[in-house]
Amino acid sequence: MSKFETSFMGKIKKIAVMTSGGDAPGMNAAIRSVVRTCAYYRAECMGIYRGYQGLIEGDLVPFTARSVNNIINKGGTILKTARSNDFRTKEGRKKAHQKLLENKVDALIVIGGDGSFTGAVLFGKEFNFPIIGIPGTIDNDIFGTSHTIGYDTALNTAVEAIDKIRDTASSHNRLFFVEVMGRDAGFIALNAGVGAGAEEILIPEENLGLERMLESLKKSRRTGKSSSIVVVSEGDKTGKNVFELADYVEQNMPEYEVRVSVLGHMQRGGSPSCFDRVLASRLGVKAVELLLDGKTNFMVGLQNNKVATTNLEKAIKGHNTINMELLRVSDIMTT
Amino acid sequence: MSKFETSFMGKIKKIAVMTSGGDAPGMNAAIRSVVRTCAYYRAECMGIYRGYQGLIEGDLVPFTARSVNNIINKGGTILKTARSNDFRTKEGRKKAHQKLLENKVDALIVIGGDGSFTGAVLFGKEFNFPIIGIPGTIDNDIFGTSHTIGYDTALNTAVEAIDKIRDTASSHNRLFFVEVMGRDAGFIALNAGVGAGAEEILIPEENLGLERMLESLKKSRRTGKSSSIVVVSEGDKTGKNVFELADYVEQNMPEYEVRVSVLGHMQRGGSPSCFDRVLASRLGVKAVELLLDGKTNFMVGLQNNKVATTNLEKAIKGHNTINMELLRVSDIMTT
Amino acid sequence: MSKFETSFMGKIKKIAVMTSGGDAPGMNAAIRSVVRTCAYYRAECMGIYRGYQGLIEGDLVPFTARSVNNIINKGGTILKTARSNDFRTKEGRKKAHQKLLENKVDALIVIGGDGSFTGAVLFGKEFNFPIIGIPGTIDNDIFGTSHTIGYDTALNTAVEAIDKIRDTASSHNRLFFVEVMGRDAGFIALNAGVGAGAEEILIPEENLGLERMLESLKKSRRTGKSSSIVVVSEGDKTGKNVFELADYVEQNMPEYEVRVSVLGHMQRGGSPSCFDRVLASRLGVKAVELLLDGKTNFMVGLQNNKVATTNLEKAIKGHNTINMELLRVSDIMTT
Amino acid sequence: MSKFETSFMGKIKKIAVMTSGGDAPGMNAAIRSVVRTCAYYRAECMGIYRGYQGLIEGDLVPFTARSVNNIINKGGTILKTARSNDFRTKEGRKKAHQKLLENKVDALIVIGGDGSFTGAVLFGKEFNFPIIGIPGTIDNDIFGTSHTIGYDTALNTAVEAIDKIRDTASSHNRLFFVEVMGRDAGFIALNAGVGAGAEEILIPEENLGLERMLESLKKSRRTGKSSSIVVVSEGDKTGKNVFELADYVEQNMPEYEVRVSVLGHMQRGGSPSCFDRVLASRLGVKAVELLLDGKTNFMVGLQNNKVATTNLEKAIKGHNTINMELLRVSDIMTT
Repeated sequence: MSKFETSFMGKIKKIAVMTSGGDAPGMNAAIRSVVRTCAYYRAECMGIYRGYQGLIEGDLVPFTARSVNNIINKGGTILKTARSNDFRTKEGRKKAHQKLLENKVDALIVIGGDGSFTGAVLFGKEFNFPIIGIPGTIDNDIFGTSHTIGYDTALNTAVEAIDKIRDTASSHNRLFFVEVMGRDAGFIALNAGVGAGAEEILIPEENLGLERMLESLKKSRRTGKSSSIVVVSEGDKTGKNVFELADYVEQNMPEYEVRVSVLGHMQRGGSPSCFDRVLASRLGVKAVELLLDGKTNFMVGLQNNKVATTNLEKAIKGHNTINMELLRVSDIMTT
Repeated sequence: MSKFETSFMGKIKKIAVMTSGGDAPGMNAAIRSVVRTCAYYRAECMGIYRGYQGLIEGDLVPFTARSVNNIINKGGTILKTARSNDFRTKEGRKKAHQKLLENKVDALIVIGGDGSFTGAVLFGKEFNFPIIGIPGTIDNDIFGTSHTIGYDTALNTAVEAIDKIRDTASSHNRLFFVEVMGRDAGFIALNAGVGAGAEEILIPEENLGLERMLESLKKSRRTGKSSSIVVVSEGDKTGKNVFELADYVEQNMPEYEVRVSVLGHMQRGGSPSCFDRVLASRLGVKAVELLLDGKTNFMVGLQNNKVATTNLEKAIKGHNTINMELLRVSDIMTT
Repeated sequence: MSKFETSFMGKIKKIAVMTSGGDAPGMNAAIRSVVRTCAYYRAECMGIYRGYQGLIEGDLVPFTARSVNNIINKGGTILKTARSNDFRTKEGRKKAHQKLLENKVDALIVIGGDGSFTGAVLFGKEFNFPIIGIPGTIDNDIFGTSHTIGYDTALNTAVEAIDKIRDTASSHNRLFFVEVMGRDAGFIALNAGVGAGAEEILIPEENLGLERMLESLKKSRRTGKSSSIVVVSEGDKTGKNVFELADYVEQNMPEYEVRVSVLGHMQRGGSPSCFDRVLASRLGVKAVELLLDGKTNFMVGLQNNKVATTNLEKAIKGHNTINMELLRVSDIMTT
Repeated sequence: MSKFETSFMGKIKKIAVMTSGGDAPGMNAAIRSVVRTCAYYRAECMGIYRGYQGLIEGDLVPFTARSVNNIINKGGTILKTARSNDFRTKEGRKKAHQKLLENKVDALIVIGGDGSFTGAVLFGKEFNFPIIGIPGTIDNDIFGTSHTIGYDTALNTAVEAIDKIRDTASSHNRLFFVEVMGRDAGFIALNAGVGAGAEEILIPEENLGLERMLESLKKSRRTGKSSSIVVVSEGDKTGKNVFELADYVEQNMPEYEVRVSVLGHMQRGGSPSCFDRVLASRLGVKAVELLLDGKTNFMVGLQNNKVATTNLEKAIKGHNTINMELLRVSDIMTT
């Protein structure tokens, strides 16, 4: 651990927390954990509304343990979140820094994803300001943690929706294309696809190709399957969007009635799963403890089921890779 | 009750049941009820697969009480359902009739919607064949019953999905357009909209007009609402689809980030609510009892919380009208 | 409508609302509706915490439309509820009246059950104070409404729990006794029992008798059922509690492994169903409108799917009777 | 890897699978995975009903890929499960072996817990019969895997139920004792307790003591909490059962209304979470592949998010220990 990373030992009396970027189930559990851990260690705590933009505008208030009663099971984020173009400018960040100083805030915890951490690293360096990141995003695309907060809940939401679609698909002998979230990474598609027993899964990491997909669907049809579910990641690389894919298959397999369902934003909401609540609680504790130990520039995360820390810059630069074993499981299950 | 309607008294020894048209949660509970009621009265029972088309193709098998174990809580329909162009032809219906005779089936119970009942009436008259309809569709658009089987479940599914979307809408101060099912009738939109606390509800029965919608959203914004949900029925009559509506609002209210979510086919699936299971159980009993009493050409339904019968042709021709009191409640809630 | 019942016309400027007795899902939706309807009609509104006891202690605050944002989907009651021995005394009620006068409250809306309405009637008469009751209880045991707020949700909660128990019962070929709520009335047991496909249902309204239950279970076993669910109402009149029933059956049918599950208080909580949210919204509007029309001493309710009013004293004295047709359906389904 | 463990290479043509012991959500997904993986590798597969007892009685049938259609999302186990006293005798195991030989079964996969694996090890040794164990139990008490199949689902079920109880607890300012499953291990109680935001968690691994619990509840009351949830593991070591605990607190804190809820067997059922379905799919593949590779006497499991194998005897003898970091998180959250 470098000098820089531990140089704030004993200097942190007041911590502010924000949520930034896309919201994810469990963010409230993480906020609650940060606030309660501050209370436990008798540090003060403030909640910043609407992410960096709210900080720039001075939208932050003192938070006590009671401020976070009864939020552990709520979706969304009570602190709200927003994009901030202002924070991309030097001037905006200066204002943000000023607001923190005005409020005597000594350190910042940012709950969010890649983009939010990039801003955090820049800010931390420019103003030598202690920052810790907590990975909160349904996409699970952050290096340094096996699970981001919200991912497990999003998987359950997707699988429950696909179960419902399966009911109607089977009743009608139809083929459904179901698009799930995951712009650059197929984690949701692969796991929800295996979990929902999909007949085919299309993810950015593996270009199945239209021909092979068609072949596979035809084979599945021949072996007696009368209905099928194809789970498609938003960011699929076939070059076609989910509606074009459906058209393509319908033209090439006229025996199938094809339908499309885009699960969309409901995947971001809902009461978090037990896993996400526990994860958020653990990471919130660690984030505060790191700051109180004088550390900065880290992301807290889960590695091998243990809470671990990663240099925040590494977390941004790194990439999680798709689980090849699970890809193979998926192939075997759908044969 | 006309002579025609009761002329089969004592002649019904074997009843066949099918599901037809769009599937709906609770259809399995209705099948189970028909089959068990037959067993109770020691009538024989057959299940017809894939609706009229399956009947034409002779796809029917004997069903006993055990055939329907553990299906009361399952979405979809174990009998499957399909469209049948053949059944629209005289020849197709003749084949269907023949298959019933071959299998010594004396009467038919059709679980489905308007379209399925139209076929049933025609068939019943052409071949003087006893037929009873059970209303199964999520759209609740059938005259003669206050509730169709599947409607209550679809409402809960829609409301739960919108609750999730609300989480992310509030977190981001966004405006969401959520499209729910209901091509010709706004029952789902109106009830799910009120149930989800939507800020605006667009239904075919009431042309709010784009201007007034905009005015209403602007007012809601002025009064401090930072996020909003507009629930739109598939069959909304503004002349724009849900994506065009969203564009229109985004152009006229640039302060809002607008998003669209089309709930789609998941509304058709899922484990039925208690209400739908009980309704299906009650209607299935009544359908069989009517046939055993020698009656035909009726639809069973719920009126004033009691099981009631409606002449099947009236059920087809009539229309349920939207509840004006609920419209008013909706207006008051969203002001 | 008597003189007494309409004598407050034009005099109601400020309405207070409370929840009282056992809580029920949808109470928050009812509170929201009352508050928003007041806002719509430009009447003032106050929320009273902890029912009559809170009123006596002066625990009430002004409520605006914004006070009830985002509560329509929340279980429990944001106003909380409590028993009040003080309100049973003349002195207590006097204090309550004083607090209403001090706060310039002109009328009171009580959301609750039988017990709460009894207090309301007494209070209304003693002080000539306008009062409207909204039926909120999971038990559905209030005369003058086909559905109380919370009942539909409780049924779904019970059925979902029994579905889960069915999974494990089938896996193990076990017999489960599941106790559901309903001290004096078997509405939950009968509907949840039919909805869950229970093999036997024990309710206070129908004393099946131990012998007949045993006979029925033995028959069900003979016909090949390897697992069974018996749904028992809290208030069952066999003279044995659910654990004693289980023992009795285990001793008399040693071939069965018998288990007991008491669903308990979870039936009172949870996010309300669409039905309960819409019902609560409708009844809240009507309650306020009645008061503004100068009426008092009524309960609002649902009759034949329409909002209706019942004299509050009649609502208390009357009794809903079990649906005999549904009992018969239950018998047929379990044969 | 020892000679013994790999000595069946190339000899395995037909694999039988059973579920044994307490059922758990995800067992069906594991069965499906075993059956499909056999199909993928062109090995034959049989399903054994009712565990060891069914095997002894010859209750096994050929399973093809289609036998396991549409079961991935079903709770319970389609193969059912049972206790077998016969299998504890040498004679019983001999019969079991004979049945396997008669059916030309070359290897056995047992999905279950500790007890089931103990029988498997004995049997494998006695008859030199290839056996692989897949950990399926909600208790998560098996050494060699970070997660057993069913555990994640049980946590979500428990947390959702406690969320509902929280609604009514908050409405009434009550203290609830909620008993969750876990006879010898507090994994469910600790995780569900943290996930549900419980004020106190009582587990077998940590004897809090009655005095300290009381102190803690009193403190929580003083700091303004008006309602509280205490999650208690079945196997709690205070020497009192959950009802006695409740009585004790009620006597010592008369200001609290205390209630008890025993979640019971519903924790074993329900549609499995995405996590459990994916886990089951992965472990099923690995189990079959190990057998086809000639290996025996292993349990497959999850270690550091990777599929791993453990000697079956070690799996039985070892014990998972409670996560001390999570205990600390729990302490911090409830302070």
